Amino acid sequence: MDNIVLIGNKPVMNYVLAVVTQFNADNAEVIVKARGKAIVRAVDTAEIVVRQFLPNVVKQSVTTSTDRIETDNGPSNVSCIEIILIKS
Amino acid sequence: MDNIVLIGNKPVMNYVLAVVTQFNADNAEVIVKARGKAIVRAVDTAEIVVRQFLPNVVKQSVTTSTDRIETDNGPSNVSCIEIILIKS
Repeated sequence: MDNIVLIGNKPVMNYVLAVVTQFNADNAEVIVKARGKAIVRAVDTAEIVVRQFLPNVVKQSVTTSTDRIETDNGPSNVSCIEIILIKS
Repeated sequence: MDNIVLIGNKPVMNYVLAVVTQFNADNAEVIVKARGKAIVRAVDTAEIVVRQFLPNVVKQSVTTSTDRIETDNGPSNVSCIEIILIKS
């Protein structure tokens, strides 16, 4: 099972469940990724997992970056976030 | 001058200007903070400052947390982000 959870527009609990499922499938590390407006949902997901569901999981790192994407109006920049969660 | 830029609902360039102004006023470190939906704007602000305005400034750390806030419907959790920018 790929250990990346890419955050989209679904309710945050969908992604919390996806992360919890991956840790229960014995992944030692799960990476939560998002771009643009979904960044808030990625932070929510990581915070809810760590605070409410898996106390033995910690945030190893949070990094931000910029992706270049093609839009109808030509190339554009979009912010990205990557949150690495690991079993402590 | 306090070196914290708290992100609200204004256009992102307002906050980019605030950060650039603080570095030009000889602050060695500027902390970009946001909660909830403004988290995306905080990431955008940091990325634009580092990529387009101040190449000598780097992201020292990005951390997320949860604040407990009072709402009309009682206490609630809100995600927070803190991005520390420093002159390299």
